[in-house]
Amino acid sequence: MNLDKTQQSQPAGAPAHGKSLTLAEPLTLQSGVTLAPVTLAYETYGTLNADRSNCVLVCHALTGDHFVASAHPITKNPGWWIDLVGPGKVIDTDKFFVVCSNVLGGCMGSTGPKEINPATGAPWGLAFPVITIRDMVQAQARLLDHLGIESVFCVLGGSMGAMQALEWAVRFPHRVFSAIPIAGSYRHSAQNIAFHEVGRQAIMADPDWSHGNYLAEGKKPKRGLAVARMAAHITYLSEVALHNKFGRRLQNRDALTYGFEADFQVESYLRHQGSTFVERFDANSYLYITRALDYFDLQAEGGGVLAEAFRGTPVRFCVISFSSDWLYPTGESKTIVHALNAVAANVSFVEVASQQGHDAFLLDEPEFHQTMEGFLAGAAEARGIAYRPANR
Amino acid sequence: MNLDKTQQSQPAGAPAHGKSLTLAEPLTLQSGVTLAPVTLAYETYGTLNADRSNCVLVCHALTGDHFVASAHPITKNPGWWIDLVGPGKVIDTDKFFVVCSNVLGGCMGSTGPKEINPATGAPWGLAFPVITIRDMVQAQARLLDHLGIESVFCVLGGSMGAMQALEWAVRFPHRVFSAIPIAGSYRHSAQNIAFHEVGRQAIMADPDWSHGNYLAEGKKPKRGLAVARMAAHITYLSEVALHNKFGRRLQNRDALTYGFEADFQVESYLRHQGSTFVERFDANSYLYITRALDYFDLQAEGGGVLAEAFRGTPVRFCVISFSSDWLYPTGESKTIVHALNAVAANVSFVEVASQQGHDAFLLDEPEFHQTMEGFLAGAAEARGIAYRPANR
Repeated sequence: MNLDKTQQSQPAGAPAHGKSLTLAEPLTLQSGVTLAPVTLAYETYGTLNADRSNCVLVCHALTGDHFVASAHPITKNPGWWIDLVGPGKVIDTDKFFVVCSNVLGGCMGSTGPKEINPATGAPWGLAFPVITIRDMVQAQARLLDHLGIESVFCVLGGSMGAMQALEWAVRFPHRVFSAIPIAGSYRHSAQNIAFHEVGRQAIMADPDWSHGNYLAEGKKPKRGLAVARMAAHITYLSEVALHNKFGRRLQNRDALTYGFEADFQVESYLRHQGSTFVERFDANSYLYITRALDYFDLQAEGGGVLAEAFRGTPVRFCVISFSSDWLYPTGESKTIVHALNAVAANVSFVEVASQQGHDAFLLDEPEFHQTMEGFLAGAAEARGIAYRPANR
Repeated sequence: MNLDKTQQSQPAGAPAHGKSLTLAEPLTLQSGVTLAPVTLAYETYGTLNADRSNCVLVCHALTGDHFVASAHPITKNPGWWIDLVGPGKVIDTDKFFVVCSNVLGGCMGSTGPKEINPATGAPWGLAFPVITIRDMVQAQARLLDHLGIESVFCVLGGSMGAMQALEWAVRFPHRVFSAIPIAGSYRHSAQNIAFHEVGRQAIMADPDWSHGNYLAEGKKPKRGLAVARMAAHITYLSEVALHNKFGRRLQNRDALTYGFEADFQVESYLRHQGSTFVERFDANSYLYITRALDYFDLQAEGGGVLAEAFRGTPVRFCVISFSSDWLYPTGESKTIVHALNAVAANVSFVEVASQQGHDAFLLDEPEFHQTMEGFLAGAAEARGIAYRPANR
């Protein structure tokens, strides 16, 4: 553990990816492949307390990163959970030591297909091994080892973050005091896989993808990746949210143009989502992370019975879903809750009424924030951590 | 009218597109553009009765065609509505004279972007004018003129066919005795437009699309069109249907391969949907027809009040939706029904309970077929047509 190397410096010209750790030991992946070296880029907020009991591990979503509450180095946008994480906020950095790492397979500083394969000196590309949610979690566990954190007060996240939180609870039940899986599921459905497959096919259809070798060839499959993002983005919003936001309103024009320009605001919005995404995300990372999601299946980990994956768990769970989320509908969260109930686990469940769809977990949703705050307060009391957000 | 030219012969080597009619007069499109010549490929089934009162006009969906009850010349598949249309069937060709034409802008013999632009001698490509649902209906009206049919007993169709049926009722209320819009809507929602825009961007991202000139250049944007089809296909099925059909079952393998092959059956299925579609459909037609759908807005035609589009209508309506259709959800059919009620129109409405999603209108759904049969029987009696399907 003390051989792990913490790197704070960045190569010249590269965007700053925050802190990073290169694991001392190779990582044996779920596929059986051994991966080394493994570097994790991460950020921390707040201070670890004396008994190392106040760590909140935030897990990010498919296209998220570790810049939870600090500016993104490429887009310069504020942290993606700045509404929730900070001094006096629900995830109070005056009380908690918040850790978030870029997932294994990612493209913001952690080891992934865009990093250099030491065996060839070239970017990994498709030679990078397929990774799973479990592999991401195993790598995070090594990071916590390095930080001297034996037990996490709370592991939480939305969407793919929820899946990591669940995997943490299943894989390391005695290292997790509480878990908040938000807007997630226990496995990818056929429809989830189908949408991801469309995205992957869009990327692979782009000749600039070059069978995954685009970085070595100095290209970028921007068009394919943009289409993938556009298709996915529709699934992040509810039909009602799209209607309220755009309806059939026209974009900077008074009448239909009878052409293929972006007549409608929703077209212009989607194109913008696609074109900005490709500036900050790697196409191969998108392939690998969507694959990890598709492979995720806690029911299989429970030998076909989801409850078995949780049997004997000491973890306190708070499962949160959003009523208009059709990507990971409430019913899937309820399935998790039923499984936890079946093994007499400590679980609370809230379906937050929201019109925002899946992306509600990223937005300022008062009921969602109140639910988290209430659960964290109870769990903190049980754990003996002072938590009473000052300005709330 | 008697100048219209009916062509029965086909160019050597071209697939047989059935009957066709070239309009004698140019068509003035909704955009104001004048289009000529306009050819419509069509099929008929059954016999027109002496008083020409038994015509059922079937309108096809986005990627449908006029081969309602006869084999498709390219795929050799049986007609897409063979379950419903034929002797003794619900749409009884022993009693009705069934007409269906390939829509304007289509690619199965009607004038569209893949046909020759007489001004250049080359395929139209993007020089083809943007057409609308109203333009499709205007062209169909000319076909009925040619066939000597002043009034249609029933105009009906699913999905885009429903929109044409509604447009017929609004545009030609005195030429329509009854109308059955199935699994449709009165306008494209922001989500509908968004999914179509993804498809269009996928096509346009394919370098083989060549800014629409691929036919002249001897190319075909197969990869982009396949991605467009895959994305759209997901919207045709319900989440439950995908789950029942595929779940997380693997394709011809016992375990995950930790790669990007089609591990899951749903991936294999989607890839097949994409690759077979490109053999029978033209990419530019896909652009034009999706655009026509996005532009469709009967509420706008009613001056912002949907009911006004129907005011005074003598048409008998039967509006049918499917409970699990999330592309054109039941709520949109109900909006149509409310508008019709508001102007005291003759309307019945059935939401068919089905798990099949939008594509239920193409499947053997007994409650759906019974609903149509009941409505057609009542309407036929009112119109004085003998209709009592023999074998039902």
